Amino acid sequence: MSYPFLKGHGTENDFVLLPDHDGSLHGELPVERVRALCDRRAGIGGDGVLRVVRTEALGESGPEWFMDYRNSDGSVSEMCGNGVRVFARHLLDEGLVAADRPVEVATRGGVKVVTVSGDLLTVDMGKPLVGDPSTVSVGERAWTAANVDMGNPHAVAFVDDLSEAGSLLVAPGHDAGVYPHGVNVEFVVRRGEHHVAMRVHERGSGETRSCGTGACAVMVATALLDDAARGTAYAVDVPGGTLSITWTEDDRILMTGPAVLVARGETDL
Amino acid sequence: MSYPFLKGHGTENDFVLLPDHDGSLHGELPVERVRALCDRRAGIGGDGVLRVVRTEALGESGPEWFMDYRNSDGSVSEMCGNGVRVFARHLLDEGLVAADRPVEVATRGGVKVVTVSGDLLTVDMGKPLVGDPSTVSVGERAWTAANVDMGNPHAVAFVDDLSEAGSLLVAPGHDAGVYPHGVNVEFVVRRGEHHVAMRVHERGSGETRSCGTGACAVMVATALLDDAARGTAYAVDVPGGTLSITWTEDDRILMTGPAVLVARGETDL
Repeated sequence: MSYPFLKGHGTENDFVLLPDHDGSLHGELPVERVRALCDRRAGIGGDGVLRVVRTEALGESGPEWFMDYRNSDGSVSEMCGNGVRVFARHLLDEGLVAADRPVEVATRGGVKVVTVSGDLLTVDMGKPLVGDPSTVSVGERAWTAANVDMGNPHAVAFVDDLSEAGSLLVAPGHDAGVYPHGVNVEFVVRRGEHHVAMRVHERGSGETRSCGTGACAVMVATALLDDAARGTAYAVDVPGGTLSITWTEDDRILMTGPAVLVARGETDL
Repeated sequence: MSYPFLKGHGTENDFVLLPDHDGSLHGELPVERVRALCDRRAGIGGDGVLRVVRTEALGESGPEWFMDYRNSDGSVSEMCGNGVRVFARHLLDEGLVAADRPVEVATRGGVKVVTVSGDLLTVDMGKPLVGDPSTVSVGERAWTAANVDMGNPHAVAFVDDLSEAGSLLVAPGHDAGVYPHGVNVEFVVRRGEHHVAMRVHERGSGETRSCGTGACAVMVATALLDDAARGTAYAVDVPGGTLSITWTEDDRILMTGPAVLVARGETDL
């Protein structure tokens, strides 16, 4: 069976998109198919799959389109900040949603509203939860790390140079009392006023080119250090690009960044 | 500009194919385009690009089709044993060559003849050149390694367990007097009669899922140890699959393996 796909990325967090508007093409979307599609050598390659399906085809109500997001190992995931921008860009490119108003996307993490301004898309990443600092370590080195939960846990360490964290081939050490289920660890340097750069070790994935929630956690930790006014936009450089992040008056994190579709075609994976 | 592509692999050595029959679509095929296509996050992803162009479109004579092979960094390469199988499979799939005789492919490394038997394709990898053994090392461990040149240099070390070589995140140590331009290092274990398994650290690329010339070098080193009769087929397991390799009476190495096309479409990278 041959079926359509697209490939796209947001700050080099990349996805295979599977148009399946009435839900008849992929059924429950088998784990094996997700793994085959995301395999970077034997398949197309991606950090995850975004199935594009009408909400009503799943017997649900809400916005017209549901983002059925799967991790590359086939597991179900609630939401992905970089993925939802790519998803909204695809809906807009195909004329599947109106171009003159925000795009509503149903996800397992609730309805996400994406606003578009030229090449950039903004998504509301929700409220941050700030906990007590702890310590993270790489080899002999240790740093105090801010504790920010963005729906998933983050430890944010400010360093003098991003190379201090070394190769990040193994997970940094962390306080298992504070993070019993592991933690995503960000290393941050200042680049200028309201401008930082980061590297991230994602729990279960290793170092990645971009982590949307990680960039949000870094912005929150930096804004707290700076005692910055709410509404201040921070530029956060990740290895795969730059995200712009704002902490609003009503305590929500807005993340703005690019989303590109680079290829489309047919596969029988 | 949007143009067609395919993606395929041979034992998980993967390629982006660019049909460009009359050579008008990609001109000299800019380095930047090759890099963009092979980028595994921002592009389609591959170990290299195989441009499919008519030999006469390049002002040359010879077999009808020329395999214009580029490494993922954009550099020109002469030949690729896994790539030429994928190339021939594509020509057959599209009816661009006759299905009832061997497929001749012009390459910078000369004309390669690919024979097809069901899902498997066989390519003549040329004559091996055997030199004096030397020593390779990983950390504190060292092994005597056979020296086999298959157009590129190989050091083949027999080990008790493939995990002995460790993570292979850095290049194994080698004798720079024997290999002044570096070397591909294979680690080999016995799996059964005429059956071995290997891992490879490719010069400049790190550990890979498959290396065609490396598998041939491993077969040669093993057949010499075994004092095997010419014409004996060896199964060589690589991380991405299995290759069958035979050393012929007339001192040539025939490599047989699979080749699969997994996706096709359009891109504007």
